[in-house]
Formats: sequence, C-alpha cells, structure tokens
Amino acid sequence: MTSKCRRCGLNRAEIYLAHSNLNLCPDCFSLLTERKVKNTIESYKMISKDDKLGVAVSGGKDSSSLAFILSNLYDKLDMTLIYIDLGVPEYSKHCLEKVEDLAKILGKDLVVYSLEDKMGFTIMDLKKTIYGRKPCSACGAIKRYLFNKIAYDFGLTKIATGHNLDDTVEALFNFYIEGNVKSLVRLKPYLPKTHPKIVPKIKPLIGLTDMECLFYASYKGLPIRTLECQFSKGSRSIRRKEILNMIVEKIPNFKHAFINSHYKRILPLIEQALKNQEMPEIYDCPLCGMPTSLKDAPCHFCKIVSLVKGELENKRMYAS
Amino acid sequence: MTSKCRRCGLNRAEIYLAHSNLNLCPDCFSLLTERKVKNTIESYKMISKDDKLGVAVSGGKDSSSLAFILSNLYDKLDMTLIYIDLGVPEYSKHCLEKVEDLAKILGKDLVVYSLEDKMGFTIMDLKKTIYGRKPCSACGAIKRYLFNKIAYDFGLTKIATGHNLDDTVEALFNFYIEGNVKSLVRLKPYLPKTHPKIVPKIKPLIGLTDMECLFYASYKGLPIRTLECQFSKGSRSIRRKEILNMIVEKIPNFKHAFINSHYKRILPLIEQALKNQEMPEIYDCPLCGMPTSLKDAPCHFCKIVSLVKGELENKRMYAS
Repeated sequence: MTSKCRRCGLNRAEIYLAHSNLNLCPDCFSLLTERKVKNTIESYKMISKDDKLGVAVSGGKDSSSLAFILSNLYDKLDMTLIYIDLGVPEYSKHCLEKVEDLAKILGKDLVVYSLEDKMGFTIMDLKKTIYGRKPCSACGAIKRYLFNKIAYDFGLTKIATGHNLDDTVEALFNFYIEGNVKSLVRLKPYLPKTHPKIVPKIKPLIGLTDMECLFYASYKGLPIRTLECQFSKGSRSIRRKEILNMIVEKIPNFKHAFINSHYKRILPLIEQALKNQEMPEIYDCPLCGMPTSLKDAPCHFCKIVSLVKGELENKRMYAS
Repeated sequence: MTSKCRRCGLNRAEIYLAHSNLNLCPDCFSLLTERKVKNTIESYKMISKDDKLGVAVSGGKDSSSLAFILSNLYDKLDMTLIYIDLGVPEYSKHCLEKVEDLAKILGKDLVVYSLEDKMGFTIMDLKKTIYGRKPCSACGAIKRYLFNKIAYDFGLTKIATGHNLDDTVEALFNFYIEGNVKSLVRLKPYLPKTHPKIVPKIKPLIGLTDMECLFYASYKGLPIRTLECQFSKGSRSIRRKEILNMIVEKIPNFKHAFINSHYKRILPLIEQALKNQEMPEIYDCPLCGMPTSLKDAPCHFCKIVSLVKGELENKRMYAS
C-alpha cells in the first residue's frame, strides 16, 4: 500500500478498512478506533462517572485494548482489572504475565482469581467429566459466573468485557439459525441490573472487528498473549467466524450491516412482542445463593462444580 | 456412490441429500419430494378442493416441477398454467416451447400472455430506460403484477409460484442484512387475500432446494429450458446464492434451520409486534385500477410502463 492516509493526508496509510473503504495511517486509525468506542459507550449510556468499573481481562487483544482505551478515555474512572486463572498449563500463566504487565502500564489494580486456589480444581479437571475434551461451554459459564460474583463481592457497579463485533455477529448468526430467541434477546451491548446480585455488563468494543482490535493492540504495543488456549483449536466458534469472514469477502459491510439491522430494526420488534410475556423468574441458588433461572436446583456454575468435584472424589477413592 | 437407497434398501442410491444425510434412489427421492410438497401445502392449508389454481410457469426447473407435482397430487384440481412471454430474444420463445410441452403432458390449459402483443413493448425496451442493462427488478415487478392481474381477470382463486428454499433463504438473508422488516414480513409461504383484486399467492416448493427441484425435473423427464436469460448472469441474486451455498458447505442444514427458525420463532414475534401498528393503506391505481400502496400515484407497474412507452415515443419522434 503506497497511498496516503485518507484522514490526515500526510502519513503513509498502513491499514485498509474494507467495511468503510478507508486507508489510514496508524495514528488516525487509533484515534478513530478510540472514537468509535467512545460513541458506543455514549450512545448506550454505558458508563457514568460514579461507576466502579470492573474490566474482565484475559491477556488477549480485545480485553487489553478495551482496558487501554477506557483508561485513556476516562482517566478519572474507578477501574479494576479482573483476571481469572483457569489453570490451563502454560497458557494461563502466560496470560497472567500479560495482564500483570498491562495493569502496571495502566496503573490500575488487578484482581487475580485462581480457580485452583479458590475452588480446588482447574479447567483441566473438566476433561474427566461429560464436558470431555471440549470444555469451552462450561469454561464460558464458569467465567460468566465468576466475573459477576467477583464484581459483586468487590462492590463494583459494572463489568466491561472485550466482546467485539466478530464475537457478537458470530453469536447472533448462530442464534438466528437456531431460532434461539431467549439468547438473541440477551445478547445486548448493555445488560442492565435485573437482580440485586447481578452486576450490569457492558460491551464497549461491540463496533470493532477482530482485526481492528488486533491492529490497535499491536500499534499501541500492548502486552498480549502469543499462545493459544489448547482447547480453542477447531472450536465451533472459530469455525463460525471463518464462515462470517468468507461472507465478508463477498459483502464487505456484512457484519456491520447485519448487526445494525439487528439492533435497530429486528430486536426492538422482538422485544416489543416479548414485553407482553412474563419475565422469567429469578431464584436463589440453594448452594451459593447467587441468582439463577432454575427453581429449587443448583445454578449452572454449582452444577459444574459438583460434577468436577464428584469426579475428583472418585479419582481419590480409586487411588487410595 | 455405490450404496443402496436408505429408504427402500433395494435400488442403487444416486442422490445424496446432505441436509438430511440421506442416500436415495430416484424413485424414493421423487416420492419423498412429492411428500414434502404435500406436507407444505397441508401445513399451510394452501389449497382447498374448490380452488381455481393458476400456476405461474417459466419453463424453468422449479415451476415445471411444481405444475407436475400439483397435477399428480391433486388430479381433480382446476388448474391453469400461466406463462408470460417477456420478449427476450431466443430465450422467451425457447421457454414458451417448454411450457407448451408441459401443458400437453399434464393435459392442462395454458394461458400465454405476450408483453409485446398486449402492452406494445418487450423487456428489451427496458434497456433504454433507467433500468439499463439490469432490468431484473423491473422484470420481477412486471411479472408479479401480471400474474396477479391475469389470475384476477380469469377468476382464479389462487396463484402458485415455484419459489423454492434457495430463493426464499436468499431473499430472507438479504432482508435481515438490510433490516428490511416490511419485505421480511411479506415473504411468506402463503400470502392471503388482503384486497378484492389481490389473488392469494402460495409457494408449495418452499421446502425444496434448487438441487432437489433440478433432480426432480430431470428424473421425471420434464421439459425444462436449457438456455439462461441473458440478464441473469452475474445478477445479485445469483451472487447471494453462491454465498449461501458456501455456508451450506460448512453447515449442511443451514438453509433448512434458518428458514425454520425464521418462520417458527422469529417471524411470529415480529408479526405480533407489528399487529399493533396500523396496516398499510391500499389504494386504487388511477391508471389501471389495480391495488397499490401509493396514494394518488400510478402503481409501480404503470410507472414502468409509462417510462418504457415514453422512451419508445422519443425514439419514434427522433426517427421520423
């Protein structure tokens, strides 16, 4: 690429954004990226100045960019990074180092929650359960539960996650194919408080593609992981993203158009139709006391925990 | 393929249906195809025995299969084939021969409407108008108008069209990306009578893929066109279908799952939300008297006609 940046007209363009047909230099790209995030935050009223914000970090390009951008945009905001060490050999420690570096750069507190120290098991122990060698869905449920629980215990008022445009389109596309209306309705840029123990979730990066997050993190020299989780290879989520990228090659603004149509045109109608239906009841989990949609039964997290602990117990009995 | 048919276990399987993972022999494939169409017709209550049915035929695999299947399933049904000769050189006459053969095989009446004879122009005259070299959308509007008008003038009670699964998924996919709720709601297997001059439309092939229609027509030896319309090459609709087939290679039941979810889960909610909104007004076109959504203005068809006639008039004036 030898053209000049379309925004400043001075520097050499290094990035081509096909969805908006723009050639940009790194500085203008970074500026526009931060502006996009600011627009998202403002249009959904995601953050107020009294918020105590928890930022879920993983050592990946998305959450590192998120923490960096938020810290830049709102320097006075009370902000804590939260990292969950899932105990994946090599990978989890590698990621921890990255988020520790990030916390130092930003001058922010970092809460590290070790699944092994606190719960007595790691994600590797899921292998012996029905989750087999594909523990991604259980791992997702564990992280969702813990980020909420930690934020709640620390008295934080909101949790920001690094979910980007690709993650969101991938999930939405999936829910449309499945006709999964329940999940379709819950996948929003801003999930408000629906229960005293549910901390609101925000997704400020929902307008940025995977590529934009990667470029941003690398131009800013952010510490990001270079290892892949051993379970991610060939995962359904990655295969779905490949399909979406195939579509984008034919329809460059597919992701942006699809998500815009969903949030502006379709979702409001679905929500209006569901408004007349009863809200799903929220119960207290009899084991942990946290909110759950299940009546008289342990929550999803507690079920996974008891499954893993049962397996570990069996193993110990056979070993002795 | 050397396996036996999964249904009869006797004949050699010649067709593999990836979406339902079935190897079938031609006879069982044909039987199951007809059954699928029957199920569609019954579940949407598309046809009653007193209907006078018009079948829109084009000489293509879909509408020929449709007419053949309907004639087989309901041998006592009052059924008339309708063909519109659009005046595309070579192509339109070729297609007319095929539908004439089809009508003979089925022993059904065929109404042939020649655009040139009745309206004094052909689809080629659109070339000189704003529709330029891509007259597909105007041609679609002309056909929709005329099939309804002919059926209405002949006192027919319903029109069946050969729209199949691929056509429908392609259009739906498009409307979702565009957030085109109005068109999304109108794309239904059964469009009922909403005005005395609107003849209800049914799409009995909505559950069959392009491939299934092609295989069916060829196994039954139906007369189908072997020429392509000169305007179809590189059309947007064909490019979109290529994208969908790319997705199917990764998710074999994508089209079936997507359309099922749409009609069973999403559309009912959208319709419920829109129920509270006012129905769009229907007016009489001041030129032709047929129904239109436009107030105090000619309908879409009459606009195209006056555009073409204006161009032809200009040409004649310059020539003289």
